[in-house]
Amino acid sequence: MDIVKPRTLSGFMELLPEKQLQFDAIADTLREVYKSYGFYPLDTPILEASEILLAKGCGDTELHIYRFTKGDTDLSMRFDLTVPLAKYVALNYGALTFPFRRFQIGKVYRGERAQRGRFREFYQADIDIIGDGELSVINEAEIPAIIYRTFAELGLTRFVIRINNRKLLSGFFDMLGCDIAASDIMRVIDKLDKIGLEKVMEELASLGMGDEGRRLVGGFISQTGSPAQILESLKEYAGRSELFDKGYEELQTVVKYVFAFGVPETNFAIDLTIARGLDYYTGTVYETIMTDHPEIGSICSGGRYDNLAEYYTSKKLPGVGISIGLTRLFFILDDMNYISGEGSPANVDVLVLPMTDDISASIEFSQMLREQGVKTQIYYENKKFKAKIGYADKVSAPYAAIIGEDELAEGKVTVKDMKAGTQQTVPCEEAVGIISQALAARTPHKIIEVKREEV
Amino acid sequence: MDIVKPRTLSGFMELLPEKQLQFDAIADTLREVYKSYGFYPLDTPILEASEILLAKGCGDTELHIYRFTKGDTDLSMRFDLTVPLAKYVALNYGALTFPFRRFQIGKVYRGERAQRGRFREFYQADIDIIGDGELSVINEAEIPAIIYRTFAELGLTRFVIRINNRKLLSGFFDMLGCDIAASDIMRVIDKLDKIGLEKVMEELASLGMGDEGRRLVGGFISQTGSPAQILESLKEYAGRSELFDKGYEELQTVVKYVFAFGVPETNFAIDLTIARGLDYYTGTVYETIMTDHPEIGSICSGGRYDNLAEYYTSKKLPGVGISIGLTRLFFILDDMNYISGEGSPANVDVLVLPMTDDISASIEFSQMLREQGVKTQIYYENKKFKAKIGYADKVSAPYAAIIGEDELAEGKVTVKDMKAGTQQTVPCEEAVGIISQALAARTPHKIIEVKREEV
Repeated sequence: MDIVKPRTLSGFMELLPEKQLQFDAIADTLREVYKSYGFYPLDTPILEASEILLAKGCGDTELHIYRFTKGDTDLSMRFDLTVPLAKYVALNYGALTFPFRRFQIGKVYRGERAQRGRFREFYQADIDIIGDGELSVINEAEIPAIIYRTFAELGLTRFVIRINNRKLLSGFFDMLGCDIAASDIMRVIDKLDKIGLEKVMEELASLGMGDEGRRLVGGFISQTGSPAQILESLKEYAGRSELFDKGYEELQTVVKYVFAFGVPETNFAIDLTIARGLDYYTGTVYETIMTDHPEIGSICSGGRYDNLAEYYTSKKLPGVGISIGLTRLFFILDDMNYISGEGSPANVDVLVLPMTDDISASIEFSQMLREQGVKTQIYYENKKFKAKIGYADKVSAPYAAIIGEDELAEGKVTVKDMKAGTQQTVPCEEAVGIISQALAARTPHKIIEVKREEV
Repeated sequence: MDIVKPRTLSGFMELLPEKQLQFDAIADTLREVYKSYGFYPLDTPILEASEILLAKGCGDTELHIYRFTKGDTDLSMRFDLTVPLAKYVALNYGALTFPFRRFQIGKVYRGERAQRGRFREFYQADIDIIGDGELSVINEAEIPAIIYRTFAELGLTRFVIRINNRKLLSGFFDMLGCDIAASDIMRVIDKLDKIGLEKVMEELASLGMGDEGRRLVGGFISQTGSPAQILESLKEYAGRSELFDKGYEELQTVVKYVFAFGVPETNFAIDLTIARGLDYYTGTVYETIMTDHPEIGSICSGGRYDNLAEYYTSKKLPGVGISIGLTRLFFILDDMNYISGEGSPANVDVLVLPMTDDISASIEFSQMLREQGVKTQIYYENKKFKAKIGYADKVSAPYAAIIGEDELAEGKVTVKDMKAGTQQTVPCEEAVGIISQALAARTPHKIIEVKREEV
């Protein structure tokens, strides 16, 4: 027979079993946190009519879309989870209860040039809160609380959620009274981290911004300190732009409640240089930076928008949402050795090794274990003991349970603690008790364990 | 702005929030059962190189594949989870531990004509056990145990797992000594349920089968009764075909251990008319029929095969596996009103309703609840009480927690049991205790509740 060389497409993540367990542990943690805040799960199709997915147009993304026809139908694979959400909410408007909170963890597709750490098929993990006509600004304060809880549950400690407010920013630009487009100014400001304040000032000058304007911008974007300090120093711009004042009020409310939600000050900051998606966001915007790895960029971003589904409905549907690029995040964490093997549960708790021809006793014992919630696998293959116990080792089972002729005759089982290397032969019921108690007593580990922080 | 009418492609399931919760509850149950037997999770790409997916060719399926080119690459969307598994095992052979047990619950694509209850994008839930060179027949006995556990955990009681053995069947056809292809005979036998024994005999005659052959076939396929009875009456065919005798021995072993696994006799049967995939399966084959709805066909099928990945490797990789067409199963169960609303957990346990301007106390209370694992949402919108409590009702929260001026002043909260309609005002900590105890004391419901069975 002709053999086709097996391969997986470049840019498509496919994990070995132990890595898959770790990936799933992260996805499960996200799911649990999102659920604890009342978000509904959502699952939309990966394929949609192209007219739907491309209703908005999507700039550069459009070039990278997997688009094709089948029969008469022009189809596209989704490139994010926001457009399908907009379609879903517009389509099911009458059947949904607003504010509608949904999370979705799903694959999206972008046929970009594959490079290390960049994927063509990747998971996004999104949450959004959609209002009908209006949506309280307090929702914008809950988002950092959820981001904080998410990364804390994963075990990450050194990260900062940075927020800004688009109204504040736009209001400030209005104050400058120059006719340079806000988007052009923002493009320059966005480079602050990379090129420094001096170069930013030069570039603003070359855009035609006068001395006074540059002085104002320089002062504005150089503000640092705690959220309270920044809020304090922002007061000097008050009373000059209605939009700015509205943004200031929102920012104040958001900061107040973010702390009420218990987000530590070390994990939260106002950053007046953040804009994110100038056309789309209209209130609070979010970025999340790993303190020790700012070069990676934001690992969780989003913001407040006024109109989720304007391409599909005349209803005004304001919302706020964030997105985590899960596949890329996993790749990065794994690459930095941040993923703890102990943070993902063992795939099998007990491997039962029957050493007799008739394995009925092993089957019975395995059923007793499963009834106690213990993940149990029986090794059925006819191999030598060494191969059997080697399998228990390879699948990282914390316990092996051996039932040979002697055990069978006495109604007992030999329980081997694979890590300690110790073993004891006890009646089956006692063995179930010993194993389930030991499993319950294990110290829980977070999936992310950053050893470098201890240095 | 031009509005594009929102729509979802026909043949693509997209559920409303409450239905999605139910779907997820089913998928979660499958996942938990599979994990309890030591299956590793696997997630392979939805897109693969066409040469990989179509290495085997796949008959009619090929016409329905979503296949397209992007740049120079000929791509296809997967149409099942078996071909990607074969590729994965061949590709990662050296890194896997055999027997390799994996489950995968993922979307597959078939662009068939859309009809009611037939989907173009649908979930399959597969488990497979792959051996390296060899695989004990006892694995084939464990599969019905897992099928039984799966449906029992979902709450389905009236179903029968039917098994047969392909060696037994092929050995029997050898005995007939006629030169009619086994596949032709099987195609006729397969109609037994629909057309009855007499018509089957007629069709066999028109294939050219003589009186003696038809007498043998008629006797063989008419055997009914308990597995023990069928095994007993099959003895009369022993000693005439090596293949038959081998199949008989396997069937005997499988039946013995299926009962050792605790599968009740009411949920298990030998059915000598089952063949399933004549080219592929080589040992035990499985079907699962809903007792009250045989017209639906098998809801979980599979079997033992000798060579999983022959198109990708010269390694011999025997295995056994089953598949559930999850999207179709959900559609059918829902259509028959078999899905219990109480079987999927509430999306929100407590809706906190702040009735004051400052909502800090509500935030604090919600954090206390979440720390106890209680899914909690705060209603932030500035609405009248009636609208707020109406929201709690619409999202089916079992409890509402109201914090108004009076409660705030006393450090209390009013807890309303939404179902009973009762309420009590108690200190916050007490409220957390009341709610978490009440939630823990709830009677667990299965996701499938067949009310008709009670009649």
